[in-house]
Amino acid sequence: MSTDKTAAVIVIGNEVLSGKVDESNATFLIRELRELGVTLKSVHVIPDEMETIAETVARASSKFDWVFTTGGIGPTHDDMTVPAIARGFGLELVVHPELNALLLRHCGDSPNEHLQRMARVPAGSELVWAEGLTFPVLVVRNVYVFPGDPKILRRKFLAIRGRFRSAPFTLRRIFTTCDEGELAALMEETESSRRGVQIGSYPVYDNPEYKVQITIESKDPAQADEAFEQLCSRIPAASIVRVA
Amino acid sequence: MSTDKTAAVIVIGNEVLSGKVDESNATFLIRELRELGVTLKSVHVIPDEMETIAETVARASSKFDWVFTTGGIGPTHDDMTVPAIARGFGLELVVHPELNALLLRHCGDSPNEHLQRMARVPAGSELVWAEGLTFPVLVVRNVYVFPGDPKILRRKFLAIRGRFRSAPFTLRRIFTTCDEGELAALMEETESSRRGVQIGSYPVYDNPEYKVQITIESKDPAQADEAFEQLCSRIPAASIVRVA
Repeated sequence: MSTDKTAAVIVIGNEVLSGKVDESNATFLIRELRELGVTLKSVHVIPDEMETIAETVARASSKFDWVFTTGGIGPTHDDMTVPAIARGFGLELVVHPELNALLLRHCGDSPNEHLQRMARVPAGSELVWAEGLTFPVLVVRNVYVFPGDPKILRRKFLAIRGRFRSAPFTLRRIFTTCDEGELAALMEETESSRRGVQIGSYPVYDNPEYKVQITIESKDPAQADEAFEQLCSRIPAASIVRVA
Repeated sequence: MSTDKTAAVIVIGNEVLSGKVDESNATFLIRELRELGVTLKSVHVIPDEMETIAETVARASSKFDWVFTTGGIGPTHDDMTVPAIARGFGLELVVHPELNALLLRHCGDSPNEHLQRMARVPAGSELVWAEGLTFPVLVVRNVYVFPGDPKILRRKFLAIRGRFRSAPFTLRRIFTTCDEGELAALMEETESSRRGVQIGSYPVYDNPEYKVQITIESKDPAQADEAFEQLCSRIPAASIVRVA
């Protein structure tokens, strides 16, 4: 198992971009991936457009270890995620016999042309089954194709999440009454002197307790702890409100 | 004024991708842009990485009328939005005299090197002032640069939102007990027969009232109404629960 896997989430749907639906799938996946130790590098919300989906998925697939798409997999004209992924990879759409049998069972003996379309997937696609699933998860190369319905997405992701386990992150935090400007040089120096440690700086306004939250994180717990100690020893003690 | 302006929102920040902060700026901008009649084509959350920001902003700038970035504009090492935009456009970073004077006033007479960095912007940048603002909005070509702090972002956007007014959308809706599969052909035909009308289909599960919400929208109110009537007349009356 590699210790640092990267991922992208692609949310497909005009309904999100036009504000008809509040996005919750990316929020769910952000938390899950974090907990799994996966480094999420991109969340992209894009419209139901064939070329945009094709290009966005293909680019993310080549850059990151895993890509998770949500939305656009029903039987209607605005559901084009699966054919778009085929186009992005230059793969043919072929009827998947197992998926076809499932759809026939699900929709009765005579599904119409639009429902039958749903049995067509990019050549070489894999169906991933797990306990509790009525329908499998479609996987095309490193792209996991999830529906837009938040309940079904959650059920499917949770059923297969074990595949995505990576090394966990260690996170330490310092809350201080210093200004960001005073801390800038110290944080920059600390980050650049330690490989694999990321230091974040989050100012808050209107907070009587502290002005800046410093986050120190790494996949190497010793490095995170050392960077944390280094910062604590160099920030005036009186201005450290608390640590975590 | 063009009737159909497009936009992209780019959210810059590791804190969102790692789940430390729940994103709310994109949610705010999605609603505002919708109300303004602007067609939002992309919301992209990306990390604090120079090359990624440079490339993402430059690509969005060339594709859409307006680009709105949020985050990454403070004085610390992880704030790299402004130099990254300069790099993406191949522009030099230069000290902006007006911004420099503002920072001096704001930070006292002797800002340190990190605060002074904030006065450096891509050559040719514009500062947009509006009533109620302490600091102006930085605009580089068609890119509007906003901070990550939700309160400040809201204040700044609301102060200048008048610039982004476009023709409004007309939205009609049909709630029906039909399945998506039954509606697919009719929706496809209706959409393809009318220019500038977008039809969306949103199935719900576990809802006793209806199974699918159909949305019909257009910047041409007459076209939206006609498509709405056409659909209503062809869906069995008994399966239309309500319209809006």
